[in-house]
Amino acid sequence: MTSTLITGIGELTTNDPDLGRLTDAALVLIDGHVSWVGSASAAPPADQRVDVEGRAVLPGWVDSHTHLLFAGDRTAEFEARMAGQPYTAGGIAVTVAATRAATDAELAATLRRHVAEAAAQGTTCVETKTGYGLTVADELRSARIAAEHADEVTFLGAHLVPPGADPDEYVSLVCGEMLDAVAPHARWADVFCETGAFDEDQSRAVLKAAAAKGLGLRVHGNQLGEGPGVRLAVEVGAASVDHCTYLSAADVDALADSGTVATLLPACDLSTRQAPAPARRLLDAGATVALASNCNPGSSYTTSMAFCVATAVLQLRMTVEEAVTAATLGGAKALRRTDVGHLAPGARADVHVLDAPSVTHLAYRPGVPLTHAVWRKGVRVR
Amino acid sequence: MTSTLITGIGELTTNDPDLGRLTDAALVLIDGHVSWVGSASAAPPADQRVDVEGRAVLPGWVDSHTHLLFAGDRTAEFEARMAGQPYTAGGIAVTVAATRAATDAELAATLRRHVAEAAAQGTTCVETKTGYGLTVADELRSARIAAEHADEVTFLGAHLVPPGADPDEYVSLVCGEMLDAVAPHARWADVFCETGAFDEDQSRAVLKAAAAKGLGLRVHGNQLGEGPGVRLAVEVGAASVDHCTYLSAADVDALADSGTVATLLPACDLSTRQAPAPARRLLDAGATVALASNCNPGSSYTTSMAFCVATAVLQLRMTVEEAVTAATLGGAKALRRTDVGHLAPGARADVHVLDAPSVTHLAYRPGVPLTHAVWRKGVRVR
Ligand SMILES: [Zn+2]
Ligand SMILES: [Zn+2]
Repeated sequence: MTSTLITGIGELTTNDPDLGRLTDAALVLIDGHVSWVGSASAAPPADQRVDVEGRAVLPGWVDSHTHLLFAGDRTAEFEARMAGQPYTAGGIAVTVAATRAATDAELAATLRRHVAEAAAQGTTCVETKTGYGLTVADELRSARIAAEHADEVTFLGAHLVPPGADPDEYVSLVCGEMLDAVAPHARWADVFCETGAFDEDQSRAVLKAAAAKGLGLRVHGNQLGEGPGVRLAVEVGAASVDHCTYLSAADVDALADSGTVATLLPACDLSTRQAPAPARRLLDAGATVALASNCNPGSSYTTSMAFCVATAVLQLRMTVEEAVTAATLGGAKALRRTDVGHLAPGARADVHVLDAPSVTHLAYRPGVPLTHAVWRKGVRVR
Repeated sequence: MTSTLITGIGELTTNDPDLGRLTDAALVLIDGHVSWVGSASAAPPADQRVDVEGRAVLPGWVDSHTHLLFAGDRTAEFEARMAGQPYTAGGIAVTVAATRAATDAELAATLRRHVAEAAAQGTTCVETKTGYGLTVADELRSARIAAEHADEVTFLGAHLVPPGADPDEYVSLVCGEMLDAVAPHARWADVFCETGAFDEDQSRAVLKAAAAKGLGLRVHGNQLGEGPGVRLAVEVGAASVDHCTYLSAADVDALADSGTVATLLPACDLSTRQAPAPARRLLDAGATVALASNCNPGSSYTTSMAFCVATAVLQLRMTVEEAVTAATLGGAKALRRTDVGHLAPGARADVHVLDAPSVTHLAYRPGVPLTHAVWRKGVRVR
């Protein structure tokens, strides 16, 4: 049980209501957890000592919404979209076909590569989903592989109706045999509640079946228009409703009055050239907001939470503090975890050191790679 | 004279009209220049061999507009702007005061740090400006220090009228004693032609005086509104007019019919929460467009040309190819250089290797640090 003292912290964002933001601070990590936080001058001795020379330190990013388990490439689709050309082929079905055709080892390698890429940029807790299998066997193996490499696994059999399948029969499969197979490997279930994917009744059926199996609930909703996603998420007590790009006043009020986190995916809005999500309306109403990457090969192929934070500030008009909180503590709340997203004694030792004197530089210096060092569960990963 | 063979290039962007974009390609660098470009299977032997294993290669970024020589910090001003608070103190004058108070060694160290940070992200040719001195002595030392560390130096005594100075007297100083002192150390002169800085007549006087001294011309214009900047830049035959955020139809036509490059600064538009520059109107009219960072501590504190490219694609609606060209060859044209911005035999050996199979990933994967390796003048700098 080696202890590590991280000292010389110019600005320490703890996300702890009592500790707040400290200057000239230090942290001690023991056995994968934070054991001490305070003034550098009062720090206890430790086996190892790392002086970060005035840099800013914050909790590692909690990326609560990704789709990192896939195969294949959609560069051409992206290029066509950016060139303003119609692109009818492809979409999620292209990734489904490639994912089904890949071996377990290929899928695991791609997932590991993405998780490592994210960790090198400060992401220390990552959720990922199934949803590119869409058969019992393919969803099951996706969940199994995801559980080996991600912190949280979400069953998204209800990502889309597979080409050629009957929608109601597919919903029955998702709620029955597929859920039975995947549930032991997942903590969460999710549904893409959107025109062209699953309607309100189908979505409710999936969520109710998953809840009956003991899974926590999440919803993809209100990405393409003001749909029933937010209303349904609040109704079923989902931990999070994700996208929230188009919200009615009633949606905003419902979120503010609920325990459901509004998870915004600004890189996705940008990459699909949609309007930015109404972060200010949500925050001003008192809703809890999380930021996540939605990393996936179609609509948002980034692992950079720093990019999401910068975009949230520059375009969604969140303050720097709101955005940093949403990408750490907000992600933890969206995953209903109390061990990550903050740096107080007892928290998981997920520590992100910036090559900058303050977290403000994440938005003040957009695009500049500012990750200097990262500890995950007390182990230095960068 | 050691030769280096870079082989295994999955996609080679040459920006050369005859060579175009190659696959399975190789490059040979000798003595700071490209000596051979072609198919990997036909590559000649060389002293060193680097296999980039299918990665994409493009010319190093040419960042034709920066303000990297400064002292002091404007984090608080940025935070206040992002929080929507009025911020009356500060602005450029804060940086002028800090820059004047800094030692030569401090200014040089900050400049070197920024140039190195840019190089680590693939920027191999960088212009920088004076303009935070605004006295004869301070502008002179800024130009001298800049000339030691940047590829191109621009005299920007006409950045703003120093607080307390009489505008017409200051313009006379810039056109006279200050120009005489700085001209030997700069290739370019520039003026901030904007309401609140210098009006059309004052700007013309500065540009004419600089031209008479043999300096090339550049203009900051049309940043805050449809001003005379573009019209004046075209009138005097400036190499570039920079910002171009607000353009009349006549401005677009004038640029399309001229040899003046329209240099867009998308990170600046974002960081000041302005509308994106009308890149499509310029490109569709046939104007030559460059992309630059405008890295400075106030309105755009990024060295990331990849971020500028991603933003140009995602928000200015440039295609990936247009944006990559604008950030390499476009920058070279804005600096009237033929040795950089392309990779053909004879070009400067400024080579950028991406951790991605194609340049499309620069926009497809926004915020992900994709620079794998960089050569500048044939020397590996990352
Ligand atoms: Zn998603
Ligand atoms: Zn400028």
